[in-house]
Amino acid sequence: MLIPQSLAYALLAGLPSEVGLYASILPLVVYAIFGTSRVLAVGPVAVVSMMAASALAPLGLQSVAEVVAAAAVLALLSGAILLVMGALRLGVVADFLSHPVIAGFITASGLLIAASQIGHILGIDGGGHTLPEIAHALWQGLPQTNFATLVVGGAALAFLVWVRRGAVPLLTGAGVRKRAATTVARIGPVVAVIGTTLATWALQLDIAVVGAVPAGLPPLGLPSMDPGLLQALIGPAALISVIGYVESVSVAQTLAAKRRQRIDPDQELVALGASNIAAGLSGGYPVTGGFARSVVNFDAGAQTPAAGALAAIGLLIAALFLTPLFHYLPKATLAATIIVAVLSLVDLSILPRSWSYAKADFAAVLTTVLLTLLAGVEIGVASGVAVSLALFVWRTARPHVAEVGQVPGSQHFRNILRHQVIIDPAIVTLRIDQSLYFANARRMEEMILERVFGASELRHVILMCSAVNEIDLSAMESLEAINERLGDLGLTLHLSEVKGPVMDRLKSSRFLGQLSGQVFLSQYDAFATLRREASGRGEGSAAAGA
Amino acid sequence: MLIPQSLAYALLAGLPSEVGLYASILPLVVYAIFGTSRVLAVGPVAVVSMMAASALAPLGLQSVAEVVAAAAVLALLSGAILLVMGALRLGVVADFLSHPVIAGFITASGLLIAASQIGHILGIDGGGHTLPEIAHALWQGLPQTNFATLVVGGAALAFLVWVRRGAVPLLTGAGVRKRAATTVARIGPVVAVIGTTLATWALQLDIAVVGAVPAGLPPLGLPSMDPGLLQALIGPAALISVIGYVESVSVAQTLAAKRRQRIDPDQELVALGASNIAAGLSGGYPVTGGFARSVVNFDAGAQTPAAGALAAIGLLIAALFLTPLFHYLPKATLAATIIVAVLSLVDLSILPRSWSYAKADFAAVLTTVLLTLLAGVEIGVASGVAVSLALFVWRTARPHVAEVGQVPGSQHFRNILRHQVIIDPAIVTLRIDQSLYFANARRMEEMILERVFGASELRHVILMCSAVNEIDLSAMESLEAINERLGDLGLTLHLSEVKGPVMDRLKSSRFLGQLSGQVFLSQYDAFATLRREASGRGEGSAAAGA
Repeated sequence: MLIPQSLAYALLAGLPSEVGLYASILPLVVYAIFGTSRVLAVGPVAVVSMMAASALAPLGLQSVAEVVAAAAVLALLSGAILLVMGALRLGVVADFLSHPVIAGFITASGLLIAASQIGHILGIDGGGHTLPEIAHALWQGLPQTNFATLVVGGAALAFLVWVRRGAVPLLTGAGVRKRAATTVARIGPVVAVIGTTLATWALQLDIAVVGAVPAGLPPLGLPSMDPGLLQALIGPAALISVIGYVESVSVAQTLAAKRRQRIDPDQELVALGASNIAAGLSGGYPVTGGFARSVVNFDAGAQTPAAGALAAIGLLIAALFLTPLFHYLPKATLAATIIVAVLSLVDLSILPRSWSYAKADFAAVLTTVLLTLLAGVEIGVASGVAVSLALFVWRTARPHVAEVGQVPGSQHFRNILRHQVIIDPAIVTLRIDQSLYFANARRMEEMILERVFGASELRHVILMCSAVNEIDLSAMESLEAINERLGDLGLTLHLSEVKGPVMDRLKSSRFLGQLSGQVFLSQYDAFATLRREASGRGEGSAAAGA
Repeated sequence: MLIPQSLAYALLAGLPSEVGLYASILPLVVYAIFGTSRVLAVGPVAVVSMMAASALAPLGLQSVAEVVAAAAVLALLSGAILLVMGALRLGVVADFLSHPVIAGFITASGLLIAASQIGHILGIDGGGHTLPEIAHALWQGLPQTNFATLVVGGAALAFLVWVRRGAVPLLTGAGVRKRAATTVARIGPVVAVIGTTLATWALQLDIAVVGAVPAGLPPLGLPSMDPGLLQALIGPAALISVIGYVESVSVAQTLAAKRRQRIDPDQELVALGASNIAAGLSGGYPVTGGFARSVVNFDAGAQTPAAGALAAIGLLIAALFLTPLFHYLPKATLAATIIVAVLSLVDLSILPRSWSYAKADFAAVLTTVLLTLLAGVEIGVASGVAVSLALFVWRTARPHVAEVGQVPGSQHFRNILRHQVIIDPAIVTLRIDQSLYFANARRMEEMILERVFGASELRHVILMCSAVNEIDLSAMESLEAINERLGDLGLTLHLSEVKGPVMDRLKSSRFLGQLSGQVFLSQYDAFATLRREASGRGEGSAAAGA
């Protein structure tokens, strides 16, 4: 089953089919040595193949040998980047891809890949790296549709869709056990490959086929690389590394969680890096952990890395002896297997789901989906990350400030607009729902001063800092200014519930010395103490906190 | 006093001196109409002049007329950007320049400007937009030093330094009132200008002078602009707009605060935008509110915009009738006035101050200072903003999580490592000190699971959300995963002190339906309720909160 998949993804990456085989052998063994997942299978996958195609296309290379060498260089660069990230324990970089951005990216990539394969089904050139490019190529090529190809490709596609959608219910309905039925469904692509290859050979159809695949061991050695090539590929390699890593780790974690095993994300960086170096040294192209191939291992109950080694031996035998069998394999069949595989990745439900949860998440998804489709995978995912980070920063720059009062019968304080609480006209407590830093310092200054202007009975202002996780130098200077302005208005400024790390920082400044009021350990302390003072009872009994 | 300053800053911007005069007239009147500050004086200032020089230099314009037209286009673009920002109420954009970045930028610019004027004092070409460029030019030109220029420039510089440092103490020591002494010190530049001009004329010194300044009204009209020029200047114009706005607003706010007046930051955008449009239409270059010229208004007790109008009339008379008087004004004298003015901006104390407060603030300052000096003003300030934002995001991606217990005798909960608190082996409460979003969701997942693994007596996990200001879609999915994993381990997950806006969001998801435990209004409720349950007393009396 791995063989047609490897051939197909090489086709998707714009590479000769044997490159897909080579990329499936050594990396699989290397991952088995370094990886922490017992079931992850490393090799060519759809999204990374598409990204590789999009990285290689602008180089304008003429000969196939040059493109193959550049693909190997891309794998080496990607491996080196992953190893460096692993050495620096930079797995956290992948966290900047939010779930919605990943979901949107995978969905849009799936649509883009499926669209790019329609040309192969029609027997025409339908290539391109964005939806407009593909649509234009298909429109131009439509009159040259090859009907023999369309019949073979259409039949393969219909068969594969039926196997996936209709066969399992049919078999289970006929009394076959669920597990056996799933296995039958999974060998569907193999049946399609054998069937269409035989038909093409027997009828000597004039359609695009894989053709002569050189038999032999993967060619070991360093590909030729010049500084210009490295410079052109370093950016795409970084993006492929991060996307490949995120895909691989999420597959590994999903499967590990089902068996109560744990994955070490930083070690995974090293293992994937080594696998890509292996791919680059053995005539392959960038690889990562794929969902479909790993699930096979998982279902087969793989408990040791031996499963990977066995698969590698099988692929090696195929590369050595079976390549003549693929001569008459129609490209349209491979395109059909790609389309069916990637359409299962498409899940547009992230759009309504993020819309109903939070508009910022929706904006990030929509940007990712639209720009991936319209401007390509690299711009799409980079814009998604940029938009989600920008929206996060924008929200922190406009903090929520709640005026709070005491919940009756408790020492707890909540928003006066949402709860029935006890307040005091001489005291206003503002709970600042954000870390204080340069981007919101001035705004907070204005909000506080606006609240106190014209409140004639007011004596004390308490800033409740339970949600303030940080006060940077700009914000500390703003607090100094607030303290001074409130002093001018005859008001005293107090802080409550300042956290340990924030308090440590304030102690290293002059602010606490200038503060007109006190710092209370709890908001209840602050409110109770200041109320007693304000009402004239118990003056001088202020409880100083820290 | 405004006249030599205007001439000097035009020289700094690489423009003919009359451009400085023109930029001081109409913008002053326009600001008086639209501005909210009663004392702010708009015109050429040092930092913006330097930025204009750095924007115009790479254009490679040959004739002076072209450079003058490009400077006017720069003012128009800058004005348009400010007006658009004002219309969209985007004054908040300026907040992304942190105090340390601004302080570092102003200091580094001051050093850079002072260095760039040394060549004029030596009578050689010492131009450049970075410290290495200037040092190289000075080193190359040193053998050609013009001694007459050096004597005049050195004398002017020494006199101005003495006036600033030594004259005021001397006069006040001699019984002159502080205010009168300050006024004498302020007319020092005028004395230097008149003295060196007369000396140059009387002795017919062979040194670089301002030369023939055309007399007349500012030339009204739209400068010629082509799309290429607009494209080349739009980036620098945006940067000039933001920096100019920040400088102007901070001057206006500083002076307004002293008189208990208020400034409307969004209206200031409109006023500055209109002033720059006026500068562009009357042969000027980008302007902003300057500290030195505004302080004069302030000290003179200006209460109405009439002060600006009067100054504009004075400058208009100068432009019409006094320009012949500036013919023999040595450029070295103007350079000396610039050096003395900008060195008062240099304040390196921000480096130790930010170092002792927070390393992140220090990193932002250091980046700004070094890159401004070594790579120019634009790269310097842009890198400073980028570094401060990146460090903020980086910190939020690695949140502080504290395990908390009850402070005895109160309903308040604090870190078990910092305070003597009550804990219960069956309950662990983790206070998450950060909003939960994509960049820290996975990390939080790991931290929580790490804490609970192997704690055999544990029954309940409470996440105290008092510092969680937001939960985005990625983080909500992580919470679902945590809930499931804890369920697998036989543990119940509870939330406490979830804020109103966050709760609203969670209610729109399925998470609350899946949650194995409850959401408590206060941490005390949660701890007390679960303790009663755990100890077997009062089972079923759980107080549900929201």
